[in-house]
Amino acid sequence: MAETNRAWIFEQRPVGDDFDSALKFRELALPEPAGGQVLVKTLYLSLDPANRRWMAGPTYMPPIPAGVPMFGFVIGRVVESKAANFEPGDIVGGLGSWSDYCALPAEGLDKIPDMGGLPLEAAMAFFRGPGGTAYVGVVDIGQAKAGETFVVSGAAGSVGSLAGQIARNLGCTVIGIAGSAEKCAWLTGEFGFHYAIDYRREDVQARLAELAPNGVDVYFENVGGVVGNAVAANMAKGGRIAVCGLTAQYNDDHAPVGLDLMPIVLNGCTIKGFILYDYLDRLGEATARLAEWLAQGRITYHADITDGLENALTAFKRLFQPGGAHIGKMMVRVDPSAN
Amino acid sequence: MAETNRAWIFEQRPVGDDFDSALKFRELALPEPAGGQVLVKTLYLSLDPANRRWMAGPTYMPPIPAGVPMFGFVIGRVVESKAANFEPGDIVGGLGSWSDYCALPAEGLDKIPDMGGLPLEAAMAFFRGPGGTAYVGVVDIGQAKAGETFVVSGAAGSVGSLAGQIARNLGCTVIGIAGSAEKCAWLTGEFGFHYAIDYRREDVQARLAELAPNGVDVYFENVGGVVGNAVAANMAKGGRIAVCGLTAQYNDDHAPVGLDLMPIVLNGCTIKGFILYDYLDRLGEATARLAEWLAQGRITYHADITDGLENALTAFKRLFQPGGAHIGKMMVRVDPSAN
Repeated sequence: MAETNRAWIFEQRPVGDDFDSALKFRELALPEPAGGQVLVKTLYLSLDPANRRWMAGPTYMPPIPAGVPMFGFVIGRVVESKAANFEPGDIVGGLGSWSDYCALPAEGLDKIPDMGGLPLEAAMAFFRGPGGTAYVGVVDIGQAKAGETFVVSGAAGSVGSLAGQIARNLGCTVIGIAGSAEKCAWLTGEFGFHYAIDYRREDVQARLAELAPNGVDVYFENVGGVVGNAVAANMAKGGRIAVCGLTAQYNDDHAPVGLDLMPIVLNGCTIKGFILYDYLDRLGEATARLAEWLAQGRITYHADITDGLENALTAFKRLFQPGGAHIGKMMVRVDPSAN
Repeated sequence: MAETNRAWIFEQRPVGDDFDSALKFRELALPEPAGGQVLVKTLYLSLDPANRRWMAGPTYMPPIPAGVPMFGFVIGRVVESKAANFEPGDIVGGLGSWSDYCALPAEGLDKIPDMGGLPLEAAMAFFRGPGGTAYVGVVDIGQAKAGETFVVSGAAGSVGSLAGQIARNLGCTVIGIAGSAEKCAWLTGEFGFHYAIDYRREDVQARLAELAPNGVDVYFENVGGVVGNAVAANMAKGGRIAVCGLTAQYNDDHAPVGLDLMPIVLNGCTIKGFILYDYLDRLGEATARLAEWLAQGRITYHADITDGLENALTAFKRLFQPGGAHIGKMMVRVDPSAN
């Protein structure tokens, strides 16, 4: 077992995107698991736009205290267990922290099952968080049906890229909105979307009116702001908006650009916000269908892997760069030996 | 039959609240009903915030052409019929215009049934538009249940005052938001709300946090803007927002203050816009229950009646005065002999 433990310590709530003042990289003592806890060596750390929101104050998570390692979803290996249901060597997933090691309560962890030869990164980039969120958003919240027009923003991201492919597999016409020509090429190429709109170079509202003359039936909202309003203005009668995230406003300390509800009233649309935590009972079905589509070659995922915990902050900042180069799931390989 | 026909002619789309340039009062020839039409003498003209929205461009209604009488809901008496199912003397309701007489297609009209001795104004102030909208919003869209906390904005208006009473009759704790101390006194007095908040003098968000410490289960949204955001920030987990109108933005030609969806995501809330036109099949149940509650003394309505078509514009402007003196349903008695 390595003797050193390094961590990104949460120092203070960031102002705007000043993450350098918010997080500091330090060496720490190895944590000691208490009864009911396990000591986990981090293999992969997930980088999510929602992490930014967690820094701002209480959400579905408690606020992060100053002076402790930044919270993050991890996949890791149990190195020491003081909990009955885990033993050293188990591969587990759950809420951990931006650190080499963390001592975590057993009830917050689950064992990563064998994935039939898939690399471990698939548990972070495809199943669980991104795939589960995308599946619930498309199927349960958006209620996308064959023949409908489906739009997703943040479409080249981990959730968006899977949401579009799921909707396509269900028979929808799929339009993705992303922030660069390169991302749009991925959407209509590898990810098999029908159309892509580059919101930095095209008029989203006008382009959608062309591509979806009968209106948008389902909008999977990841960004909010002006893009969200442009899609909302094109909703079909009875359209549904599944709101998963609002990345456009996470780094903005000003009042956000909210959604004009007038088109929602005129078209009798429904907007529903959701977080995966409230739909964990749906993960079983989601995982089974995602695995089936993957085996059939009908869905693909992309992991954007940064090596080294020391590079986590640089990678995290890329999440919020409009037109930034990342595609799919951003994660850090914390342990160089992880598959 | 009177020989003169007066009308408010729609001249141009208003800029902000400059209604004096938008509508001009003129004498016109009596219209001649075509085949399938009836000539209606207007008894009452309904004044609704939505009329302002109609002036701005197409909605669920076609845009209003310049040079014709302004559209409005009316109750009137058939004076001449070229339609099989109507005859002179019938009392009818439907979309007419701001004029003494209008020739209307029979398929857009329905006969006002006997209301058991209630004055005709009840068909405009209680049943049909306001009562139907309030009932659908509370029951179908908001799905308000006994024991829940219900909030309505624009609470002293025709729809809001009925929505709060309906929710109270269903067993909710009811909080109304209005724009003057006088209106708040009406809410907790005659209308029987549990609490009222004066948004012009109180901090809505802070006051709601006190009055509804477990959050708002159902919000009946009539106004939007900063009031809408203040309520949304206090929603309970799984809360529902029924959006009926957004009066705060009807006279504002700037980009509206939209709704921040972050609390909606974090609390898994649902927002649904609706217009009564899409729920006409629910009017039967709504009317029956409203009549029952009225007979039991468990609901009341208030008609704010202005006499004289020539005074319609002055009355209409009062709809949009924050803290303006109107309470309940604004209407014009166009025919002085109408009961």
